[in-house]
Amino acid sequence: MKKINGGVCVPVGFKANGIHCGIRKNKVKKDLSLICSEKVGTCAAVYTKNLVKGAPLLVTKKHLENGKAQVIICNSGNANTCNADGIEIAEKMSSLIAKALKVKTDDVVVASTGVIGQPLSLEPIKAGIPELVKGLSAKNGKAAAEGIMTTDTVLKESAVEVTLGGKKCHIGGIAKGSGMIHPNMATMLVFITSDAAISAEMLQKALSYEADETFNMISIDGDTSTNDMVTVLANGMAGNASIDSVNADYRKFREALGVVMADLSRKIAKDGEGATKLLECRVEGASGRRVARTVAKAVICSSLFKAAMFGADANWGRVLCAIGYSGADVDVNKIDVSFRSKAGLIDVCKNGAGVDFSEDKAKKILLEDEIEILINLNSGKTRATAWGCDLTYDYVKINGDYRT
Amino acid sequence: MKKINGGVCVPVGFKANGIHCGIRKNKVKKDLSLICSEKVGTCAAVYTKNLVKGAPLLVTKKHLENGKAQVIICNSGNANTCNADGIEIAEKMSSLIAKALKVKTDDVVVASTGVIGQPLSLEPIKAGIPELVKGLSAKNGKAAAEGIMTTDTVLKESAVEVTLGGKKCHIGGIAKGSGMIHPNMATMLVFITSDAAISAEMLQKALSYEADETFNMISIDGDTSTNDMVTVLANGMAGNASIDSVNADYRKFREALGVVMADLSRKIAKDGEGATKLLECRVEGASGRRVARTVAKAVICSSLFKAAMFGADANWGRVLCAIGYSGADVDVNKIDVSFRSKAGLIDVCKNGAGVDFSEDKAKKILLEDEIEILINLNSGKTRATAWGCDLTYDYVKINGDYRT
Repeated sequence: MKKINGGVCVPVGFKANGIHCGIRKNKVKKDLSLICSEKVGTCAAVYTKNLVKGAPLLVTKKHLENGKAQVIICNSGNANTCNADGIEIAEKMSSLIAKALKVKTDDVVVASTGVIGQPLSLEPIKAGIPELVKGLSAKNGKAAAEGIMTTDTVLKESAVEVTLGGKKCHIGGIAKGSGMIHPNMATMLVFITSDAAISAEMLQKALSYEADETFNMISIDGDTSTNDMVTVLANGMAGNASIDSVNADYRKFREALGVVMADLSRKIAKDGEGATKLLECRVEGASGRRVARTVAKAVICSSLFKAAMFGADANWGRVLCAIGYSGADVDVNKIDVSFRSKAGLIDVCKNGAGVDFSEDKAKKILLEDEIEILINLNSGKTRATAWGCDLTYDYVKINGDYRT
Repeated sequence: MKKINGGVCVPVGFKANGIHCGIRKNKVKKDLSLICSEKVGTCAAVYTKNLVKGAPLLVTKKHLENGKAQVIICNSGNANTCNADGIEIAEKMSSLIAKALKVKTDDVVVASTGVIGQPLSLEPIKAGIPELVKGLSAKNGKAAAEGIMTTDTVLKESAVEVTLGGKKCHIGGIAKGSGMIHPNMATMLVFITSDAAISAEMLQKALSYEADETFNMISIDGDTSTNDMVTVLANGMAGNASIDSVNADYRKFREALGVVMADLSRKIAKDGEGATKLLECRVEGASGRRVARTVAKAVICSSLFKAAMFGADANWGRVLCAIGYSGADVDVNKIDVSFRSKAGLIDVCKNGAGVDFSEDKAKKILLEDEIEILINLNSGKTRATAWGCDLTYDYVKINGDYRT
């Protein structure tokens, strides 16, 4: 397996584009993206667990009942959520692009991100579709990645090459992280493409497994959005023998998919609203997967710990505190904690109690922009990693600003 | 029942004091408090659910096994948590004060709050005890309230008078909220006194019930401390017939206790770290108590919503979002939301969708320092209230500052 530059257009048979159609007032920012496969492919998705779900998710879920898709359309600037006519609008958005591309409406994945509770007008989308379709190209993957951004400060894409059944296959993805123009709900959207041949069932299995290991291990602010969605669309154009069961190729595919998803997860966490640092919490020595994940997530979700990291403060007591209230069944007297970055490694807690350490060295380590929090529970062999970011003045600023 | 000025010394037979003994470097700040009953009384307590527990909590729990106590000693400036010798220190602190007051060591409630993972020296406590004891007076309740403060900006006390079995009885309490000198764990401590006669069993029952309705409905930052504790000590000196079963007097006592606890809860929430506003989320129309509480807490715990309130932004979508991910089983299409303050009331969401409202009026309402978020789930008759505060630059500042 090797990493490759690019995103959704790395796999064979995919074109993409992104334009400004007018949903957002700022004309410099793209607000409508399209990803299109030459052939209908298998498609899997995972959705937010929020009971309040954006209308596009409900429509996409219906379209993906047969496990197939060909086109992904996504706007930014408006989440099309909590609107009385949301479903109707999402359906029309799907049928408009289906008509323009001569594909079936139920082969369309539709998504929206941005402010919620404000009606989404179809007009700018309708008017923009000709330009959007005209510019479809395997070279416009970045434009598609831009069109789904809200207050993301960097474009996020990732791709790998993996050999399955003797054929070179590819997986590529784009993501938007947490942020908004008129601050509202932080939404995470990820669109992944592949030219591997894989059944819808196996694709869903791989996606669901890796989502738990990657995207479900990120937290920016503990607020689960109404519009979160990850889809993966595989068109089989690499020519590998289709993966229809849990075999060696399935495992290789899943692993490669996991690499793309973990890479996008880190990028989303590092670009969290107002963030100055990526926090990567690596838990080992856990008695089980659930314990490892719960502990890792509790640490990167703690407002107190996130604020300490903003201040480059080696405040390990907050790590212990978060583990203690996480609900995970751990022996607190066995816990070791260290901090690591490019600037070095420092042990701060052994067997649940503090150890003498150099505050100067700790500060130097924590002033870097990527910090690892290493936790050994010394109670087993399971590991988990979670990603988050620091809590900063800018987070408050971005989310406290008046919408209008 | 009527509210009375004062705190732990309002009930008959209680004296208190608070001094600076030297645990904290800042000599202006008191760091050692004492509350003492003339007679041994019944005593009940609730403790943090954090697996990492401060040593004083473990010692207090042991001392309260017989349901009796006479003295409460509490230091600030050091939490005596995650220290190898913590239990030993807490035991010695208890026996030192017991000896000075000629009471039994196991009639002592011992508590600590402040930085964790740093050894607590007995020396300043030992040296301060003579002065602490000498100054014991029914007039020094405020000094005791000051001695438990960390970064609290206001002293918190509350008291009521209630007639039980024809006798005037009193309940008074003091509290410290979330904050620290050298930022570390936010700890909540509450000490309540009463001159009512009530069995230890009934006292525990009343405390546990009201704790779920009051203190367990507060959140400043979602981080459950290692040292949280609430105790109530009742010495029976009001002369009422002892409350030994769930009768009319028990209900009156519990109600009065609940008033003191709710009042302290509001005060703690309003003085949350960095807070500029009290948020009071009132949920009604819930199908059950659990749903009502879960919804109310999810809203006041949402970082996004808290930041919006700091910005006086009527961003009701974040209220819906928080309800949606709370885990409570609600019908999102039935939810109504309004905001209320001294400046007025405004409806922002009806049946799960936005309604037209004046942004100017909403802003005026949300610029006040006490905001009510009114949620009607329209699915039943149960209510719950939760208290929190806004998320501000100062929260980040207080908790991001380097400890040393």
